[in-house]
Amino acid sequence: MKQSELLATLEPETAKIDAAMRADLAGIGSPPLLEILEHAIFNGGKRIRPALTIFAASLSGAGTLPADTYRLAIAFEYLHAASLLHDDVIDHADQRRGNASANALWGNSTVILAGDYLHARAFLLAGTTAGAQCLDLLGRATAAMVEAEFLQMDTAREANRAEDNYFAILRGKTGALIAAAAEAGAVLAGASARQRAAMRTYGGNLGLAFQLVDDLLDYLGDPRLTGKKVGNDLHEGRMTLPLLIALRQAEGEDRSFLEQILSLKSDDRAAQLERVRGAIERNGGFSATRDQAAELIRTATAELELFPPSPARQVLAALAAYVLARKK
Amino acid sequence: MKQSELLATLEPETAKIDAAMRADLAGIGSPPLLEILEHAIFNGGKRIRPALTIFAASLSGAGTLPADTYRLAIAFEYLHAASLLHDDVIDHADQRRGNASANALWGNSTVILAGDYLHARAFLLAGTTAGAQCLDLLGRATAAMVEAEFLQMDTAREANRAEDNYFAILRGKTGALIAAAAEAGAVLAGASARQRAAMRTYGGNLGLAFQLVDDLLDYLGDPRLTGKKVGNDLHEGRMTLPLLIALRQAEGEDRSFLEQILSLKSDDRAAQLERVRGAIERNGGFSATRDQAAELIRTATAELELFPPSPARQVLAALAAYVLARKK
Repeated sequence: MKQSELLATLEPETAKIDAAMRADLAGIGSPPLLEILEHAIFNGGKRIRPALTIFAASLSGAGTLPADTYRLAIAFEYLHAASLLHDDVIDHADQRRGNASANALWGNSTVILAGDYLHARAFLLAGTTAGAQCLDLLGRATAAMVEAEFLQMDTAREANRAEDNYFAILRGKTGALIAAAAEAGAVLAGASARQRAAMRTYGGNLGLAFQLVDDLLDYLGDPRLTGKKVGNDLHEGRMTLPLLIALRQAEGEDRSFLEQILSLKSDDRAAQLERVRGAIERNGGFSATRDQAAELIRTATAELELFPPSPARQVLAALAAYVLARKK
Repeated sequence: MKQSELLATLEPETAKIDAAMRADLAGIGSPPLLEILEHAIFNGGKRIRPALTIFAASLSGAGTLPADTYRLAIAFEYLHAASLLHDDVIDHADQRRGNASANALWGNSTVILAGDYLHARAFLLAGTTAGAQCLDLLGRATAAMVEAEFLQMDTAREANRAEDNYFAILRGKTGALIAAAAEAGAVLAGASARQRAAMRTYGGNLGLAFQLVDDLLDYLGDPRLTGKKVGNDLHEGRMTLPLLIALRQAEGEDRSFLEQILSLKSDDRAAQLERVRGAIERNGGFSATRDQAAELIRTATAELELFPPSPARQVLAALAAYVLARKK
């Protein structure tokens, strides 16, 4: 399946996901709460998580979608949006996707509550559509997200540079919910334990690979395509995988340069972007990151072989390829 | 049942509730997260919500407790604790039950996340012990709590003094979760729809009456018994029911005095406590509040008649009487 076909297949699904969320939010009695939730949810998000639930359900159910699929799917978008709302309060972020963040517009108090509402609604939807097994998935994913945030705070204090720490945080913050979204679709469709595990691995790997490619695009992307400035991670002092690998590999001048760069102020660090990029390149940080992303996607795609060929399998295979190949 | 017998009956239940929470929290992998949760949960709370779940289950199940009763019961204590954690962040509170608040000790970021963890855990416990019906109760209670907070924020801006607004906020912030805790016990024990409704009314009324008595004790309580200074609500500018009723009833000098008191600064307002108390007393604010609390408790107690006599029914009747008679 070509990338253009993939996008043409995802587009109507995105519209149905959005419609399901609008219908669900119509029950809210408080206009100011609704205003915050609409700002948080209808902001051009890619709906990757609910799409995975839907295609995993289709794959596991041999093309027939269980009645509650969309209501279960939007639980994962809600949980994602709730965590972004709380993250932006925690990080004092005033921007989200190029717009003012909800906390910048309405203050921390209402945004914490709006996140709580979405959080509760997500659990309610998951539990009432797919029962205890899906609740368990959602509960574990939330616990993993919270524990990963705590690990990251500790790590920030200790300036820990272990790559396995990077992956532990990434699995908790990003991988856990995406893995749960895919597995939940399989659960809803009555998949076998082996199929559930396959969807879980597929989703988790997709999430990790997506982030590794993000790390690469942050250094190497074309701003005209990504819509973002390059070097943002360096500016913010985020130790992403390319830099971590380079730090482990570098010797001599590159090593001392990379070591001292971390102690600079953010603007001074950003001014060194070209040299940092060169040092990462020379020490294999970019190629090793790309190799790891490719390996994750290979494994994810191999898991799909467990299912008979179907349009849903084609979509999931194309999505995995897209995550790796994407330029934006 | 005498008050001393009631307390002697509740004490071992409180110990079992605490033990169930300790066992449940043992699965947490992050020591700093666990530290915050222990501070938030093991702080001398009365465990009213889980106790209601347990006695409602016992009442509805004719004395036999379903296996998962304690795991379901603690979900309500978790949700309560989660909402207090987020409330204290929202209110910038540095004290909780006479100790430093969690946000004062560990900062807002970690406390928001700790609340999210408890929130998720509560839904997971409710959904996996008692299924979709209990999840629905928990989801509605959370939505009611969040919407009531939004209503209160709006009300604060508009200085709205309607008594029905006071009750709407109280039902959402306090009544909804307590009603759900009692109803959930009935659901778990397989109660009839009529019995479920009875437990819901019992719990909701108990929660409202508890708060009305709190409002009275704040003006009239004995600090040696309550452990709190009197006049705290006046100092903080909280328009509780005694004052709202007096404002509606007062004429002439009392009316203009009560009107202007609200525009004073908090310390100047608190200095007028004696006179405010006199004006509320003269205009029936205290007696009308006490009458309303008594009526709520009468209705709650009448609902118990739906069940055959049992030790659990005696406990719930004694608890209702205690809520009204308590001096602390």
